[in-house]
Amino acid sequence: MTEFPPITAPDENIAAQARARQERLTKPPGSLGRLEDLSVWVAACQGVCPPNQFERARVVVFAGDHGVTAAGVSAFPAEVTAQMVANFDAGGAAINVLADTAGASVRVVDIAVDADQPHSPAIGAHKVRRSSGNIAVEDALSAEEANAAVEAGCRIADEEVDAGADLLIAGDMGIGNTTPATTLIAALTGAEPVAVVGRGTGIDDLGWSRKVAAVRDALYRARRVTADPIGLLRACGGADLAAMAGFCAQAAVRRTPVLLDGLVVTAAALVAEQLAPGARQWWRAGHRSTEPAHTMALEKLNLEPILDLSMRLGEGTGAAVALPVVRAAVAALSSMATFDEASISS
Amino acid sequence: MTEFPPITAPDENIAAQARARQERLTKPPGSLGRLEDLSVWVAACQGVCPPNQFERARVVVFAGDHGVTAAGVSAFPAEVTAQMVANFDAGGAAINVLADTAGASVRVVDIAVDADQPHSPAIGAHKVRRSSGNIAVEDALSAEEANAAVEAGCRIADEEVDAGADLLIAGDMGIGNTTPATTLIAALTGAEPVAVVGRGTGIDDLGWSRKVAAVRDALYRARRVTADPIGLLRACGGADLAAMAGFCAQAAVRRTPVLLDGLVVTAAALVAEQLAPGARQWWRAGHRSTEPAHTMALEKLNLEPILDLSMRLGEGTGAAVALPVVRAAVAALSSMATFDEASISS
Repeated sequence: MTEFPPITAPDENIAAQARARQERLTKPPGSLGRLEDLSVWVAACQGVCPPNQFERARVVVFAGDHGVTAAGVSAFPAEVTAQMVANFDAGGAAINVLADTAGASVRVVDIAVDADQPHSPAIGAHKVRRSSGNIAVEDALSAEEANAAVEAGCRIADEEVDAGADLLIAGDMGIGNTTPATTLIAALTGAEPVAVVGRGTGIDDLGWSRKVAAVRDALYRARRVTADPIGLLRACGGADLAAMAGFCAQAAVRRTPVLLDGLVVTAAALVAEQLAPGARQWWRAGHRSTEPAHTMALEKLNLEPILDLSMRLGEGTGAAVALPVVRAAVAALSSMATFDEASISS
Repeated sequence: MTEFPPITAPDENIAAQARARQERLTKPPGSLGRLEDLSVWVAACQGVCPPNQFERARVVVFAGDHGVTAAGVSAFPAEVTAQMVANFDAGGAAINVLADTAGASVRVVDIAVDADQPHSPAIGAHKVRRSSGNIAVEDALSAEEANAAVEAGCRIADEEVDAGADLLIAGDMGIGNTTPATTLIAALTGAEPVAVVGRGTGIDDLGWSRKVAAVRDALYRARRVTADPIGLLRACGGADLAAMAGFCAQAAVRRTPVLLDGLVVTAAALVAEQLAPGARQWWRAGHRSTEPAHTMALEKLNLEPILDLSMRLGEGTGAAVALPVVRAAVAALSSMATFDEASISS
């Protein structure tokens, strides 16, 4: 079974230096609000004050299908997942455009797309299986597959950090994936299905009722494994979610900051915090999605989102739009003049 | 007296085209949330769909002192205004760093700094007077000065638009300027001083009490001119606020979109909407400041801020941090593939 080493926290001494430097910059103390907190966090993650601007921010989109789409829980047909993988590869999806605007690059990985052949050998290098099981009636994964998927996520994080990534964003693509994501969050927060199930890509009232029923059935099936993160991913998660959990946990092991995206990534992160307690210290929440379960997961992780723009697309888009705010925070701490340098009365 | 021509609205036909294009992009309809609304607004302002990315976003910081600092309403001494003008000119202030990160350039203008000589002839080219009057006990400006300051703001907007600016941000710098700004907002919304006076740069409880008293006295003095925007700027505003009002109104006349910043700029914008009704259609609110009066002004203008990061610095910083979000909105509408282009089932 996948084991993570103990997580070390970002450097508290550097954080103290960063806070002290913020007090000397030419502005009223505290007047940059949350930008100040974000800058202190980045400095502590990097172990250097002032911090460096991100030079290789990287988005990894985890693609996977979900058998639960058979229960009619999505507004889109399942073949869209594979079509969107091609769209990512061609550079036409929202995350391609938004990451480019934010100075980040994008990689897409096929973890469990329901297709015989992956879109390309590179994209399919970490594929675990075709689709995941229908969690309303069966386990999403076997025990071996659950471990393999978490390990695939770890390897992907390692590949990115080894290639020089200094900020990671996980994104998701998978028709039906908000159903297992919502189930994981409900299992780990104790929330009622009717309180946390959202509209996903835009289902109608009947679709929403079917989704609530699927989440309720999956929760019932998973009731004996809520304290076992791998068991939970196996029973009511999916291979893409397990890989994202491994990715978020391993980023913390590798002392690399992560900007979380919306519902699906944050559900995986909630499991990752169980796999590697303390990993959340290496994460910040990019945005608040309109999905009700997302806010519950953020509260459980004690993370306050940077943006609240009623986005609900996934793919890493909310985190990508938040990245320039974090860049702004880093730039202010690194590049503003101090009161002494500018000869200003304080 | 300064007269503005009728404001024409952003192009509603182009807005409809932009909304229709959003529906064809490879994402669930509406899933980019407020990014979609922002992209439609930019397209309508530019009169073209898809819209163009901003090539010359420009921040103009309006500097001015305020006689009301004699009443002990600020945590900083008045000489800091002139020192900060030098800091802007040297590139060391927060707005310099944050604008640069957002791909915008910065200009600082001395409208009413309390110094014999402006920092440089260019910076002082539109100077109206040294400081503005102490609004707790006297008018901020003469009638001639109020008109001259509004016209200075108009000329500055014209200069920027003529030089190719395609997005404008007004910023403020002036020790004590939250006192007249709060007074203007209270006068135009009917709010009570104790409900709207904030901590500005960080005053203590006694300073806050003095500020409430100053706002109350200024409001009493201004009670007969609340329906007369120039009279209001004269009685309880200031030359810098009058210039910002002229700038925001003239930007709308010139069909150039504006991102509003925090308390001081939004107070000026509230007056500008009186000077040139409908001008607000050309504005969006960059962020929500921690100052209570700011939220009241935004509500009066019916503007929902893009960011809410507990910032309270001014200088245009909140708008500069929001600019990348607007850029992201433009990029998504302009550069994403459509369902047809990507051959995706919808």
